[in-house]
Formats: sequence, structure tokens, C-alpha cells
Amino acid sequence: MGLEQALAQVDADIDAAVERLLELLRIPSISTDPAYKDDCDRAADWLVDDLTSLGFQASKRTTPGHPMVMGHAKGDGPHVMFYGHYDVQPVDPLSLWDTPPFEPALEDTPKGRVIRGRGASDDKGQLMTFVEACRAWKAVHGALPVKVSVFFEGEEESGSPSLVPFMKQNREELRADVALICDTGLFGEETPAIVTRLRGLLGEEVTITGPNKDLHSGMYGGIARNPIRVLAGIIASLHDASGRITVPGFYDGVAELPTDIAGQWGDLGFSEAEFLGEVGLGVPAGEDGRTGLEMIWSRPTCEVNGITGGYQGDGFKTVLPSVASAKISFRLVPGQDPHKLRESFRAYVQSQLPGDCTVSFQEHGASPAAEMSTDHPAFEKARAALSDEWPREAAFVGCGGSIPIAGYFKDILGMDAMLIGFGKDDDQIHSPNEKYDLSSFHKGIRSWVRVLDALSR
Amino acid sequence: MGLEQALAQVDADIDAAVERLLELLRIPSISTDPAYKDDCDRAADWLVDDLTSLGFQASKRTTPGHPMVMGHAKGDGPHVMFYGHYDVQPVDPLSLWDTPPFEPALEDTPKGRVIRGRGASDDKGQLMTFVEACRAWKAVHGALPVKVSVFFEGEEESGSPSLVPFMKQNREELRADVALICDTGLFGEETPAIVTRLRGLLGEEVTITGPNKDLHSGMYGGIARNPIRVLAGIIASLHDASGRITVPGFYDGVAELPTDIAGQWGDLGFSEAEFLGEVGLGVPAGEDGRTGLEMIWSRPTCEVNGITGGYQGDGFKTVLPSVASAKISFRLVPGQDPHKLRESFRAYVQSQLPGDCTVSFQEHGASPAAEMSTDHPAFEKARAALSDEWPREAAFVGCGGSIPIAGYFKDILGMDAMLIGFGKDDDQIHSPNEKYDLSSFHKGIRSWVRVLDALSR
Repeated sequence: MGLEQALAQVDADIDAAVERLLELLRIPSISTDPAYKDDCDRAADWLVDDLTSLGFQASKRTTPGHPMVMGHAKGDGPHVMFYGHYDVQPVDPLSLWDTPPFEPALEDTPKGRVIRGRGASDDKGQLMTFVEACRAWKAVHGALPVKVSVFFEGEEESGSPSLVPFMKQNREELRADVALICDTGLFGEETPAIVTRLRGLLGEEVTITGPNKDLHSGMYGGIARNPIRVLAGIIASLHDASGRITVPGFYDGVAELPTDIAGQWGDLGFSEAEFLGEVGLGVPAGEDGRTGLEMIWSRPTCEVNGITGGYQGDGFKTVLPSVASAKISFRLVPGQDPHKLRESFRAYVQSQLPGDCTVSFQEHGASPAAEMSTDHPAFEKARAALSDEWPREAAFVGCGGSIPIAGYFKDILGMDAMLIGFGKDDDQIHSPNEKYDLSSFHKGIRSWVRVLDALSR
Repeated sequence: MGLEQALAQVDADIDAAVERLLELLRIPSISTDPAYKDDCDRAADWLVDDLTSLGFQASKRTTPGHPMVMGHAKGDGPHVMFYGHYDVQPVDPLSLWDTPPFEPALEDTPKGRVIRGRGASDDKGQLMTFVEACRAWKAVHGALPVKVSVFFEGEEESGSPSLVPFMKQNREELRADVALICDTGLFGEETPAIVTRLRGLLGEEVTITGPNKDLHSGMYGGIARNPIRVLAGIIASLHDASGRITVPGFYDGVAELPTDIAGQWGDLGFSEAEFLGEVGLGVPAGEDGRTGLEMIWSRPTCEVNGITGGYQGDGFKTVLPSVASAKISFRLVPGQDPHKLRESFRAYVQSQLPGDCTVSFQEHGASPAAEMSTDHPAFEKARAALSDEWPREAAFVGCGGSIPIAGYFKDILGMDAMLIGFGKDDDQIHSPNEKYDLSSFHKGIRSWVRVLDALSR
């Protein structure tokens, strides 16, 4: 009865909920670029105001980086701590956006209505599904069915430098019975998912310096060390012919997937052809002998996220550059220690350097992989609640992305975390033309209404 | 007698000559960047005006690209055709310039007085040594000692797309007894040089496309093809462990250096340690078993002049990019056909492509190497004249750079070309803080006065 009323309230209020989300999406809270510092601050203020209007005791907490937002609502029953992030990815290349990234709008597409704009899916849209679910409960019942706290970060897209210190300094305030995280996706169009396995992330920037200035490639070409060639050689050497990563010790501690999980994943009917076809590809490019789901959920990787060196403008310049650099990241799986691997990686790069060049490193975040134990009763309650809202049964799945917060809740606070999200594979997060399906937003809000209700029982 | 007067006139007029050069250097005639099209035009006009003031019949000739400047002076005796270029290299990275690149000035350095600014050496300063030599002859004698024509190009730093068509369309006007080219350097501080061997150049831009848009490296990392990794692999594969280039057929037609030339070069006392030490290096990075002079003068090379892909801003972005590209150039030696090698290179890259990616190519110039025959009597006359001006005997040397015009004079017009220049290794051409020694400029002008005199005898 209480549930049905709250669901009806969600449906009745959906247009206003979209308007609120569009307001938040208009704030260009790009955390990795210092130019948007004030905008990150503005997004945090917006959330504090909105939470306050819902009766939360809400506040903005300063950090050395972008602020955190904390909110606590009174309530009975179990205590849940909801996490989301209000910062977004950069938007370049801007030229590939069909509409301005921070002028979000509803748009009709052949696949349905979408909310278009940077952060629509990752993570402002997802974050707001939970806030709107709270609003609906509050509107109908004047209170929430369980005790709810929220914790919003503003540095998720830039390595979360302030997160661990903040969590350690605010242990008591952050502790609850279970954490809820909304930063993942559905498994397919109709199947909701609870992520129980996340990859970690190690980010490194590698800069190779050869000559002490840019040289003329006619005068020096052939005798002088070219840092682009050195960098290319190192990158090429990071994988062997079978697709395995060559950094010594990289696979130490990496276990094979347990057969029961492998079996569950096999039952999901994942289509490599369909998954890759969406982005114009067709051939799984990972390690030989691994399934597509292993490649993205349970195997570690090494990717180059950016490379730069020499002349990059129009035309041609016969320069032999002084410097070349690359941003390289590793996705990690349970058993891998990011700090140890950073050292192994750096030692490996040093070992590959030819004469007449030097290397320097800049670190960009390190977080271990996370594996949830699904023993906590909340997992089965949430799975049943999600299954009631969506056409198909909810599944326990893996996620190739890195959501370090899940591991931190466990390691720092001893809390289990349930990762429930409503994104779709074609949301183009981190890419131009990011969107969030209106159905993801609407059914996402309804899903949280159901999950909160289920947890109260 | 006539010679001494002209030399004295050079000395008397040197301050005014510097002022004229500074005026030309203030025009930012960067040919590779369309934004500077009008400036290239302005530089051509400046030269036409200056030549006209010297009594040349001078004109600006339009081409599909930047204009050519032609000038003819009346005179007796042999007919020389002088070539230089008025366009300059781009200036990035601008932040590394100590003074604005197009606000040239005289500057006192521990090694003497220099003219600082983009183009000071390459090639405006060098070009003006010849113009000023003509001015001095004219001032003293009212006429030049030989028949002089000049031919200035504005696309040398951007692949000279209009040069060959222009030379073919103006064969008669361009034909003379010998060509003079001032775009090379001294051999050491005190030894003038006539270059008799130049490398050719083949420029290619290689673009690899993987997924049809930028992807999230968490979601797709491990299963999707990464074009930066593909590009790095191709670049790394272009050389084998001994430093040889792996493109099939690349060394076809490349001959070993004749023993007499190898002997002359050996006598030059070239110090690899000194040459590389100037730019912070110490280990010759070319093919195993080759001398430093071979690496820069007589062996072909492959260099990467620029590379770009993915996120390159501050911070980190876990993107798996759709596209990566590199600007790659080959320095060629006699016996190599640039057009054939372009095809071999493209076929090689295609053969190295893994699944799920495509490559596209953009061409950036192709010119063969050139080897001068020193049989023409002008070579010995010029060598003697240069030896009179400088502390040491002039040498016949090679040059690692590509000055295609020398080959074109031979191939299109059947003319020998003498490459005489006064640049120094530390002029930082194509780099920030380019300069031309005042002594190069001053003694360069005097050198041309002597060469013109010698050729008249």
C-alpha cells in the first residue's frame, strides 16, 4: 500500500524530476580540469539545497580538492548510506557533440526518449534517481521507510584524491548497515543488475625526454634519440602476442574465475558481436582464450588513454621532439595490489629505456578491485525488489569499470555495498553525446522506491 | 680592386643590412598554417620591393599556394640563379621562446652577437646574405660582376607543393649556368662548406581508427581495439634491433658511400660527442656499425615527427579513443624513389594492422635525395673564394636535411647547384629561440661578394 502510493507519486512527478535533473546537468562540474573548480562547488551547493528541501540535514564539506556533500535523514529500521558523484568527465572533442554538452534537453530518438548532456548518465542522472525516490516517499508518507544518509563526491572522474582521507576522518558519520551505490548499468535492456565485482584502476603518466630541445629531423634524424619512438616501443612491449601484459609480476595473485560465477555469467547470454557491434567493432581484442565477459569483468588490462608528442597541428613539421608522453591505465582484478604494480610498471619502463633518454612518471590514482560478498540479506531483498520493477529477473554481475568507493566502504568502514544502476551500454558516458534514457531515469527512481521498501521489511 | 671595394662596402653597411633583415623577420610567414597566408604574401611583396630598389626586374608570381618571387638583373659573364625561401617554420611550443619569435632583435651572448627570431637563420637571414652582397656590388660598381637572377619560394617549410609545377612552367626563365642555394650551414665554426649531397624526404600522416567513437576504458578496456596501441606497435616495428628500417625494399638501390668520399668525411674530424653533446645527448642512435656522419648524411632514416591520440589535457581521462595518428617522415638517400617507398610504406602498415581497425594516409611531400657532380668549374672557384674569407679551407660535405630544390634544378633544368650557407649547428632552426650569428650574416655577405667575383673570372 505504502509502496504503491510512492510509485504512483513517482509517475505523477516525473516531469518535474526531469526538470530538476536538467538544472543540475547545466552546471559544468568537470573535476579533472582546474578551470571548472567553481562549477564543481556550485554543483555541491545545488545538492545541499535540494537535500535540505527534502528534510535532510545536509552540508558541504571542504576537502583539499572538490567538496563532498553529506546528508542525513531521520528514520527507523536499517540505515543505508547512498553514494553518487556529482562531477563529470571532460567533453572533448567538443566538435563531436551534436548539442552543447551543458545545455541538456529531452530528445526523441528511434530507441525512445533520452536526456542528452554531459553527466546525464554518469553520474548525475543516476544519483538523482535515488534523490527522487526519497522525494516520492517523503511526499506520500512524510518520512522515509528506512534511515537514509547520502554521500556525494566531486572527484570521481579525477582519481578521487580526497576520498580516502575524508572517509577515514569521518568514519562514524559514514557508517551504516549497508551502502548503496548508483554508478553502474542494467544488464541489457530489460535485466536489472547488482554488481558484485569491480575492477580496480592504476593510472600513470609516462614522459620520455630525449634531446634537451626540439631538433630538426634533417640535421639530427638518424643520430639523435627520438622520444616518440622510445615511447611507442615501450607501449608496444607492454603486451605479448597472446594479449597478456608483460610487466613482471603483473598476474601475481590473479585467480581464475570461480566455476559457479563463470556459470552464472555464461547464463547471461552476453553477445560479443552485439556488444562490440554497437561501437563499430567485431573482434574481441583481449587475451587469447578468454570470453568477452572475462575480458571486461574479470581480467586485468593495460590501456593507453592518451599520447602526445612533437608537432600535431595542420600540415607537417620535420621536428625531432624533445619530449613525448602517454597516459596509461591498468584495470585491476582482485588479488592485485595497485601500489605494488605501480612500482613494477615503473621498474619495467626503466628497464626498457635505451640510452640517451630519461623517463619521469606522474601518478593518477590507484584503487584495488572489489568483490562483494552477497551473504548480506540486503542483496536478496534488493534483487527481488528490482525483479518486481523490470521485465526480467535481476542478475549478479561484474563490471569492468573502477568504482573504488565500493572497496573503500568495505575496507575502511567494514560495510557491504550494493551497486545498482540503470545506465545502458549506449549511454556514451565519457564520450560525446552522453545520454540517459528517460526510462532508465523513471524506472530507476521506481526501482529505488521498491528497494527502500524491501529493505524496511 | 673591385672585390676589396665591395667588401669594404659590406662592412660599412652592415648595421643597415641588419635593420633590413629585422624588418623581414617581423613578418610571420609561416607557410604550413593557413592562418598566416596574408603574411606569406606580405613577405613576398617586401622582397619584390627590395629587389626592385636594387635594379632587379622583380615580380611576385601567384601559385595555388604561396607566391614565388622572381628577379633578374642585367649583367655580363656567367648567369647564376640564386634560390632561397622566405617562409618559416611554426613557432610552437611558444612557451619555450625567451623572446617573441616575430619581434627579432640583436642580442649579445657568451658566444657573440646573434640575430634572434624565427627565420633568422632558416632561411631569411641566409637569403639576405646574397641580396646584401648584390647591394654592395651595386653600390660600389653600379652593376653586378655576373648576370644574376633570384628565385625565392614561400612553401619550403610545408612540402613545396607548387615548386615543381612552377619550375616546369617557367623552365626558360629559370635556366642559368649554375644555381646557388643558401639554406645550409658551415662545417664547424671556421670551416665553410659546399654541400654536394642532400637527403630526400618522404612525409606521411598515418591515422588509425578503431571504435567508431571514444569509449570508456572501464567498460570496453580489454575487449575493444585501442588505436593508440595499434599505432605504437606499428611505429615500434618500423626499426629492427640493429636500427635498420623494416619496410620491405626500403634499402633497395642504397649504395655504400664511395671510399673517396668516406675518406674526405673522415678527414673532417667530426666529433659525435660534441655534436650530440650540444643537444644533451651522447649516444649515436642510428644503425649499428655506421659513423655519425653516415647516420646524418648518407643513411636513410625514419622518424616520428608528431603523435596524437586520446586525452592530452591536465589530469586523467579513462578514455579508449576512437582515433590516433602520427606524422612520420623518411630521410632518403640517392637510389631511393620516394613515390615507390610511399607505396611500400603504406603496404607495410596495412600488413601490420590487426583486426577491427582501419588506417588512412595523408601525404606530406616526397622529394628524392640529390648528389651534386663537382665537375663544374664553379665548384672549385667557389671553394677557393670561400677559403679566402674564412679561417679554414672550404670543404665538400653532405647534409642530412632535405633541400629538394637542388635536385629539381638538376632534374628539371639540367643545372648544377652549389649549396653554400653560413648557418651553425646551434642556430635552433625549427626550434624555439632560433638565431643567426651576426658573424654568419656579415661574413656570409662577404662570402657571396667573393663568390660572385670568383665566378666572373
